[in-house]
This record gives sequence, C-alpha cells and structure tokens, in this order.
Amino acid sequence: MRAGIVNVTGYAGADAARLLARHPEVQLVAVTGRSAAGEPLGAVFPHLADLDLTIGAELPDVDVVLSSLPHHASAEMIPEMLERGQRVVDISADYRLHDLVEYERWYGEHPSPGLLADTPYGLPELHAADIAAARLVANPGCYPTASILALAPVIDLVRPTVVVDAKSGVSGAGRSLSLTTHYCEINENCHAYGLNGHRHQPEIEQELGALRAARRPGSEPLDVTFVPHLIPMTRGILATCYARLTEDWSQEDLLARYREFYRGAPFVRVVDAPPQTKQTLGTNLCLVYPKVDERTRRLVALGCIDNLVKGAAGQAIQNMNLMLGMPEGAGLNGPALYP
Amino acid sequence: MRAGIVNVTGYAGADAARLLARHPEVQLVAVTGRSAAGEPLGAVFPHLADLDLTIGAELPDVDVVLSSLPHHASAEMIPEMLERGQRVVDISADYRLHDLVEYERWYGEHPSPGLLADTPYGLPELHAADIAAARLVANPGCYPTASILALAPVIDLVRPTVVVDAKSGVSGAGRSLSLTTHYCEINENCHAYGLNGHRHQPEIEQELGALRAARRPGSEPLDVTFVPHLIPMTRGILATCYARLTEDWSQEDLLARYREFYRGAPFVRVVDAPPQTKQTLGTNLCLVYPKVDERTRRLVALGCIDNLVKGAAGQAIQNMNLMLGMPEGAGLNGPALYP
Amino acid sequence: MRAGIVNVTGYAGADAARLLARHPEVQLVAVTGRSAAGEPLGAVFPHLADLDLTIGAELPDVDVVLSSLPHHASAEMIPEMLERGQRVVDISADYRLHDLVEYERWYGEHPSPGLLADTPYGLPELHAADIAAARLVANPGCYPTASILALAPVIDLVRPTVVVDAKSGVSGAGRSLSLTTHYCEINENCHAYGLNGHRHQPEIEQELGALRAARRPGSEPLDVTFVPHLIPMTRGILATCYARLTEDWSQEDLLARYREFYRGAPFVRVVDAPPQTKQTLGTNLCLVYPKVDERTRRLVALGCIDNLVKGAAGQAIQNMNLMLGMPEGAGLNGPALYP
Amino acid sequence: MRAGIVNVTGYAGADAARLLARHPEVQLVAVTGRSAAGEPLGAVFPHLADLDLTIGAELPDVDVVLSSLPHHASAEMIPEMLERGQRVVDISADYRLHDLVEYERWYGEHPSPGLLADTPYGLPELHAADIAAARLVANPGCYPTASILALAPVIDLVRPTVVVDAKSGVSGAGRSLSLTTHYCEINENCHAYGLNGHRHQPEIEQELGALRAARRPGSEPLDVTFVPHLIPMTRGILATCYARLTEDWSQEDLLARYREFYRGAPFVRVVDAPPQTKQTLGTNLCLVYPKVDERTRRLVALGCIDNLVKGAAGQAIQNMNLMLGMPEGAGLNGPALYP
Repeated sequence: MRAGIVNVTGYAGADAARLLARHPEVQLVAVTGRSAAGEPLGAVFPHLADLDLTIGAELPDVDVVLSSLPHHASAEMIPEMLERGQRVVDISADYRLHDLVEYERWYGEHPSPGLLADTPYGLPELHAADIAAARLVANPGCYPTASILALAPVIDLVRPTVVVDAKSGVSGAGRSLSLTTHYCEINENCHAYGLNGHRHQPEIEQELGALRAARRPGSEPLDVTFVPHLIPMTRGILATCYARLTEDWSQEDLLARYREFYRGAPFVRVVDAPPQTKQTLGTNLCLVYPKVDERTRRLVALGCIDNLVKGAAGQAIQNMNLMLGMPEGAGLNGPALYP
Repeated sequence: MRAGIVNVTGYAGADAARLLARHPEVQLVAVTGRSAAGEPLGAVFPHLADLDLTIGAELPDVDVVLSSLPHHASAEMIPEMLERGQRVVDISADYRLHDLVEYERWYGEHPSPGLLADTPYGLPELHAADIAAARLVANPGCYPTASILALAPVIDLVRPTVVVDAKSGVSGAGRSLSLTTHYCEINENCHAYGLNGHRHQPEIEQELGALRAARRPGSEPLDVTFVPHLIPMTRGILATCYARLTEDWSQEDLLARYREFYRGAPFVRVVDAPPQTKQTLGTNLCLVYPKVDERTRRLVALGCIDNLVKGAAGQAIQNMNLMLGMPEGAGLNGPALYP
Repeated sequence: MRAGIVNVTGYAGADAARLLARHPEVQLVAVTGRSAAGEPLGAVFPHLADLDLTIGAELPDVDVVLSSLPHHASAEMIPEMLERGQRVVDISADYRLHDLVEYERWYGEHPSPGLLADTPYGLPELHAADIAAARLVANPGCYPTASILALAPVIDLVRPTVVVDAKSGVSGAGRSLSLTTHYCEINENCHAYGLNGHRHQPEIEQELGALRAARRPGSEPLDVTFVPHLIPMTRGILATCYARLTEDWSQEDLLARYREFYRGAPFVRVVDAPPQTKQTLGTNLCLVYPKVDERTRRLVALGCIDNLVKGAAGQAIQNMNLMLGMPEGAGLNGPALYP
Repeated sequence: MRAGIVNVTGYAGADAARLLARHPEVQLVAVTGRSAAGEPLGAVFPHLADLDLTIGAELPDVDVVLSSLPHHASAEMIPEMLERGQRVVDISADYRLHDLVEYERWYGEHPSPGLLADTPYGLPELHAADIAAARLVANPGCYPTASILALAPVIDLVRPTVVVDAKSGVSGAGRSLSLTTHYCEINENCHAYGLNGHRHQPEIEQELGALRAARRPGSEPLDVTFVPHLIPMTRGILATCYARLTEDWSQEDLLARYREFYRGAPFVRVVDAPPQTKQTLGTNLCLVYPKVDERTRRLVALGCIDNLVKGAAGQAIQNMNLMLGMPEGAGLNGPALYP
C-alpha cells in the first residue's frame, strides 16, 4: 500500500513520516508542504533524511492520505481526494464535530459540511467498526484523546459535572513561531490558557456525552469544564479528570471495570499507579489510571499520551491500519524512549 | 535585629538566607544544619559565600528564628526557643493545623500539642493581626498558599465542592535525593502524586473552611479535592481551582471583588489574564486570576507563586516582618527574574 | 540621576529595567520600544508592572541612556544623544571594535565611525579609568565578557594559540522569534553554531591581544579559535578556554595570580572548583576558575556569567555607575537565585 | 538467538532491553539486577512491561550477554561467562584499555588482566573484523565514541595537540542518585567536571593514537586534552574537537575524505552543517561534521550521538550483531524522535 502525507512540515506530519518509516505494510511514497515544496525532506528534517523523499506541491496517486493541514484548508482539499478514491485520515479538526452549528461556533464556515455527520470520530477504542468501514476518518484532538479515554469507562456512572485539567508539552502548539512557544518564555514556566473556551472542549463533550446517553438514556447532559495548560516539556499530555461517582465503587472494582472496558484495545493500558507522560514517549500508548476515594465517591481519572503520537500521528496510523484492514498496531509497537 | 536560620541546608532555608542578605533591618547572624555543621555556608551554597557565615550546630542568641527543620524535629525544638524569648517562624508543617486529631492523622504524634490551637496560620493576607501579635507563627505550605489566595475572595459564594489541581516545580520536593527528583526521571515528564491523600489538603480545607463559615454561617462544610502534580521546572506553583458560583457574577464584578479583597495586600496581584509562574520567579508575589463563565457560573480561579519564596522563605520573612513591627515588605521587593 | 532605556522590549533592555528598579541612586524614568510604543511596560513585561512606565517612541531628557538597540540602529542614534549631553552606554556591538576595517568586515558600514577609536570597551575589570572618564561606553558582548575575564590574568603567559569553547543559554539569541529558539527545537538539544566566524571572536582577540601586547611586547599575535554553542537553558554562559602555559606554574601560584589580578574587582570571583552557570543566575558576577596540569602546562580556564546581567544589562549598569562616579556595584549586589 | 542483560536496572541496561524488544533475530530472554531481583521488569521500568520478564539474580544459559555492570564487578564475572561459552559485550570500562598500567591508574586492580590485551575495542567503524571474530568485546565509552569518530578520518593529518570539549546530557551520569544529578541542581545549569583527569581521556588517546601511529609511523605521539561538561538535557553528547591541519585542505576535500572514511559505516553520517544532538535521539547514529578554516588550517570537528544508544546500549547491540554474524544494523534502524 502507498501512503502520502499532506503538509509534512508540521510536527504531526513529520511524526507520521517517522512512524511510517517503520511500517511493515505501508510505504510512504510522497509528502507535500506548502512553504518547502522542492526541498528534500531531509533538508527540513534531518532525522528523516533516510526516507529519501522530496517535498512536493501535490500528492501523486496514493492509496491513503494522512492530511495534517490546518482546519479549513483540510476540508477544502479532502472532498477531491475522496473523489479520487483515496482513503483519508484527516488530522485537522474539520470533521471531528458532527454538529455543523457547533463546528461553526468554533471554526467558522465549513467548506464541505455534507461530510460532517457521517465521518467517524477516529478514536478506535470507541469507534473501531465505523472507522474500518470509512473512506474518511476524523483523527481526534490530542487533549480529547487523553481525556475521553480516561473517563469513557465510567462516564455513565458519574454526576454530569466533570472537570478536565490538562497539561500539555509545547509541541502541541505546533511548529509555527510564536512568543508563547519561544524557548525563553515557556522554559521554566507554566500557565493555563483558553479560559474563554477551547476548541477541544466540544469534542470531549460530544464523545463522552454520546457514550453516556447511549449507556444511560435520559440522564442529565454532560457538562465538561476543560482547562488546558502549557508546561515546559516537548511531548506529552496528562489529563487529570475529576468527577463524582453516583454509586459506591471500590478501587478494585473500578480498576476491573476499566480493564474490562479496554480489553482488546492494544494501546490503552490501565495501570496501577499515577502514570507519567514520559512512559509514553514516542509511542501510541494511552496510560489510564482511575482513583476513587471510596468514602466520598470522588473520582480522579488520569490519562496520559504522547501528544504527537496517540494524540496525532500515531492515532492517524492506527486509524489507517483499521481502514486498510491491517492489524491495528502495525508499525506502532515498541517501548517508549525512557529516560 | 538579629535573625538565625535553623536547618539552612534545605532549599527553603537557603532561600531564606538569600532573601535576608538584602533585608534592610534584620541581619542574618547564624545558620545551622545537621549534616554540614562546621562548614562555611559558601562551601555548601556558593551563591551565599558573601554572607560569610559558618554553619553551626546550634543557634546563638538571636531575636528571631526561621526554622526550616522537617516536621516533628521542628516541634521538638521550638518550645525551647520560645522559652528563650525568641520569636519563631516555623516553616515546617508542625503548627499549621489547629486540630490535633487532624494533625496526628497526617503527621503522627505531636511533640508539643499545647501550642497547636493558638499558633496563627501565617498567611498574612488572612491573619495579619494575629501574626503581628504572635511569638510563634506557622508558615503555610506552598500549595495551600497559592490555593487559598486564589479562592479566598469567593469561598463564601461558591458551592461547597471545590477542586484544586496544582502543578509544582521540583524544588518543592526538597534537596534530599530521590528517584522521583533525579534529573533524568522528571525532566520532560509530568505526573500526579498524592492521590491517596496529601498533607496540604487539610490546610486548604481548614483555612478556606473557616473563612467560609465566618462569612456564611451555617453553610455546608467545604469539600476540597486536591491533586498535586510534578512538572519539569525548578521553581513555581500554579493552582488551578474549580468551583461553581451560587449566584450570577459578571467577570468585571468578580475582578472588582478580588481587588477589593486584596486591597492593601502588597504581595497579591489580581491580574487580567492567566498568570505565568515565571512572572513570580524569585519574588514573594502571588498572582491571582479568577475567570467566570457568566452563562454557567463555572469559576476557574488561578493562583501562582514561587514555591520557595511566597510558598516558603519569602512568606516566612513577611511573617517575621509583621512580628517585628516592620514594614510587611521589608527585604522582599523587586521584580521577578524574567525570562 | 535620571536614566532611560532605549529599546526596552528585548531581553537586555528588560533586564536593565529590572536591575534599575533596585538602584539606590538612579531612577529609571523612561523607556522606548519600536513596536510597543504607547503600551504600558507592564503589558509587555508583567514582571515590570510596578515600574509604572509607558513605553514611548522617544526618550525625554535624561542624564544617562542605556541603549539596547540592534547594531547600526544604535550607532545612528547615539551621536545625537551625546550632543544633547547625555551619557550613553551602548549595549549593541557598534563601538566595541576600535578598528573600522574589522567592524565593517563583521557588521557592514558604520554610521558614526569617528567615535570608534576612542570609545572605551566597557569591561570595567580592564578599563575602569577610561570608562569613568567617558561620555560613551561600548558594553561588551556576552561571550567576550566570560572569555576575556577567564584568560586575562595569564594571556601574556601562554602560547598564542587559544581555543574558546563557549556554551550559552538561549536568551543570548534574543526575544525575536526564530526556529532555532522555538521551544521544541532547542529543548533537549545542543549544537554548535557560527563555525564560519562569529562576531564575538574579534572582540575577544582585540582585548586579549592588546593586553598581551602591553604586558609582553613583541610576542606573537594572539590566535583565538572561538566556537559558541547553544544549550537548553534560558540564562548563563560558560566559556571553557584552552591554552598552553609557556612556563611552569603550580595550581596554587596560578590561583594566586588570578586573585591578585582581580583584587578589587567586585564582580569577579576566582573560585576553587569548576563554577556553575546557575551560581551566577540573576547576578552581575563572573566566576573564574583556572586549572593547570602541572606536568604538561595545559591550562583550562573557565569563566561563567549570567549572559543577560554581566553579559549585558548588569555590566551596562556597572559601566553607568563608573561614568556617574557612583559605587561600581550600586544596584547590582545580592546573591544569585539558586536553585 | 537468546540474549541476556546483566544489571538491567541502570540506564544502559534498560536501553539495551528497549532496543532488543525490536530486534528481529535475537530474543531477550533474561535480565538480572542486584537490588531488584524478583521484581517484574515492568515494575521498575513501566515502559518495558510488555517484555514480560522478571528480574533475576543470575542469568540462565543464553547465547550472548550484554553486561552493564559497573567496572570491576564486570571483570569479575565475565571470565566465567566466557567459560560457559557465552559471547559477551561488556558495556563497562573493564576491557577498553589494552595497557594494564593505564587501566590500574584509572580504575585500580584488574580482576582478569589476562583478557586485556586481546579484547577488541568495540567501535565497529574501526575494528569490525576483530569484533566479528571475538568472544568478548569491550563496548566503548560514550565520550570516546563521539570524539574518536569525529577525529578518526584526519587524525594522521593534524598536529599532535588536540582539544576535545564534550557536552553531555545527564543520563550519562547514570541512574544512581547524587546531588549533581538532582533535578534542581542541574536544571538550568552547566558546568565542566573531571578537570583532574577523566577516565575517558585514555580511551580517546589509545584509539586515536593507534590510528595515527598506523597511518603515520614515527609521528609525534598524540596529546589529547579532554574536558567533559554536564548540560541540562537527558540524552545526547556533542564532542567539539579542535586541531590544526598540517597541510592545506579545502572544506570540500575534507568532507570527501570523511565520507570516504565512513563509506559502508551504516551509523556514521557525515553531514553538511553543525549537527544537533536531538537529531540522534533514540538512534544509534553518530553525526559527524568537520569544518576547516582554509586560511589558518584550524579544524573544528563535531561528533554527536545519543549517549545511551551509540554511546552505550545501541553500540553494544551493533557489536553483538557483528559477533553473531548478523547484519550490523539489525534492530537498530529507524528515525530519531524529533522534536
């Protein structure tokens, strides 16, 4: 199978190329990038020099496209790719929200709204069958991936008011220059952002809300408070989720429920102690740890990932594998880089 | 006035020495340290060589003592200091909790429980008068300082269920060696800890609970969920606090209330945007920012400090200043080190 | 005395403002900045909000100007300042090289070449008298400061071939955005740069060469190889200098020579062990450590500074103090921020 | 083939396990560790949980052993392994120096000196044939690997006085706790160490000296000044090497010579610009860049590696591959983790 990456020059695109370099069944045959067209990939990213590719302006005919364009730009190009018969994993936010009104509230007008309703949200742990059957999959946001996976097994067992406090490494802000991501500004620093609303909040609410509604029809709608933070590291997201269980659960039973929920999910690990972002470095893993205070029913659920892998490029390849009928983990295995 | 520091060899003790070096009215005349007795202070901390002190085993006669011993050890020595007529700021946790049962739950037996009830909790923004009149003051923990100051102005205006998600630099874990604080383990890493309960939780609940009870008698008791996190930086704490307002508040009115509450508090700044820990680096400032979603009454209140200054040594000196009748900010002014 | 800072919006300018905030005899009354004119200083730099200044387009009448404009721009404005009777410390490179040909080789045409020959190179440890008598002083580069101070005491005692391998924190590259200083690119990374020649090399050679020629007339001209490196930290420079002594020196005698050379220099400390950049954090200190292999006469001389203080803003204030007849260290004392 | 790792609990041992997890032809069947015997490997290193191994006290029968014991301990156990017919790659320093006197000067008495003379120094780029024929190979030190590879192609073309200034990430200091590697001490810090002599200096001199003597018989003996530095990052070494060419070389010819020298070496890349340590993260690559000042013949040769991979575990596997007659790069390919 032949794959192409659109807009390889961002961090998500580059990491998709890194991962495809090891893929046993899919070959990366072409990459594009707006500003760097004509340059060898190795000139922009020396660590990818062995791929021996030149950055092009347009993709040739490939079987599957990983698009890491910015939103809007992605939705403008994808219909055409689909018409050409290509399968597409869209790493942008363009097809994540099923509700057009909600989309427009956060992103403005949608270039191809007709695709919104039926494009599966590409979180394989929730939607594997839909993904396998799709021609276009919307790759989830990094924060939603960690947050949804941390809460999914219990979202029908908690009161509807949920807090997600997320901490992200700086690569989540991308490769474009900004004062916020200037080394001297964010090194040895930490701050919240997006307090007026962050685009990943409706994703979390959409997915957890649907799961809750399906498992507990008629329950109050979910109300997620989401606050992201930037912390001084390159890769990694930790989502700390706070909820109140509606019934008594022992820690043991809770862990068992999580393990049952994620049985068969190759990239979610329910662990026995607070996970560390570094334990996922370079991998497609999501480490999940729920902790209940049995006396008060307070639940703290932790989820952590490498934001560029399970939070972007790795999950895109996991989706691609499912779409192509390959083993879900093809090209994605191997331990984290630690320390 | 002559001051001494007990156990100067930890980070809080060393930072107290750094700050006293600039104090206009108090002279640091002696320092002690268990393992390093007999060594020049500059041999252990080259940046303090100019103080030209030798680490002793015992303090000579001084007017005021800053004790940064570990808990238990501190409470064993302090009664004697008080008998000698010395004023004491205890940087340990030994006198922070007024309730002996609560103390013993977290710290074990108390060596001098008789002092517990009347020792003021040394957060000058709440207890300035008591501090000024005291011979012994309990310097607050680092997390409680940021958390209490972020929530105090509205603690009687919110529902009783509050979440505090705190992020700390590594110096909060002290200078003693551990795998957790080994460079390669925590660099480029982030994790929660203390999920089975953290000693700073009862401090936060005691202070905010008392404030709430005083301003809103008969209200439900406060229920604080507190989860600390370690992030890869040396200094700084950011407390992100989540609560629900019981009445409608505009952002403007809320800011006005915070500003009114902290009028006259020289070290609390109510800011207009999410504060950054680095904006407090090396200073005694606490930056506070409340943000309300006017539609849903969700409140996110942020507090950030330098954990070794306002969270430890600087606040100790602020307390000392009050106890000695000096200007509250003596020796503590000047901008943060940025970037 | 009234001081102004031209181009306060870079890191050197901002740090000059931070330091002047504590100065006992000079008041910072005005700051300018090209892009941010009209904004409160505290809007650009929250840590400087207490200074309560607005960034202007032009300086009003002040007694002394610290100019942190880029080169060329600085030399275009300075003659006018001098005509107005202002004393000026130029933090740019415009007046550091006495030789116009050398200047033009590295920086292009000079806007006011007539001032080049007589403007003292503002390293107070070498040129205090000239600085005290000057109206315009050229503040040294950060790398040259650490390198020259590390080698000056022995520059007439070594073979002429000298290697300076310097490591710098990222703030030396300034506040302007670039991919090189994007957090994710330089965090956890290290590389050399300037291998085709770096502008600080002729500064080092000029100063050490002149010192050598004065103390050892007729000796071979100095040949300095200088290679700078970027390392992942915000502040700090370590210069590791390699030379070969022409005669036998014991370690003790060498240290004695260094101590004698820097007797009376308040900001140079000859230390007994390899110094750490962090020991200078936020201070105007230069820590120097020479180490000789007595058998082979190989000398390794280490110099370390905070690049924004002794390497820029602090040294500018030290020069200003000398020019104004004030104590050399006014406003510049106090321990480093450690850890 | 079945491999075992002795002392897996250090960083080199753990990284060998990480790499073997991907090896196509060798299976890691057993690991030992002194303090952690009996624990699951995943309890000590969560990122290695999938290997599903328990840390043992002794190795069972395996075909090849990677020993990452400390020196002395390694040489005490290795003769027995060899007697059992196992092939051994010794990651410790015990068999790197061929000269017993030199060994004893740096490390004390040798437990099995008879093996010293004939054990090949496991730098495959220099000694591939000897390694392939050996039962025991001495895996090089991290600093020597980067330094020797940077200079080897020209070591017979330079004056004998060479300076190697090396910068290392903190993982090179190992997983044992020390104040030097305590997060708060080395974060935002940089310093030289080993100025009284470092054990890697004789390794560099042995290998480069032998190469020089072989290619340029009768030339003056090499004199290497080696100064290592600790910088605030986890992985990576950059060696900056300074020498003077004895004849004129253009930059082009020099690059051509380097490329010719490393033709066929799969893990050395001669690059066109100063390499960055991060470009090797997680890989077995050594990036090399020589730069000559054609006017003065000054040469700066840069070498950078991931100190735990090409500087330790990866090179051990490269050696193992050669010893087992497998492709040199088996299990070692794939791009670096960037950013």
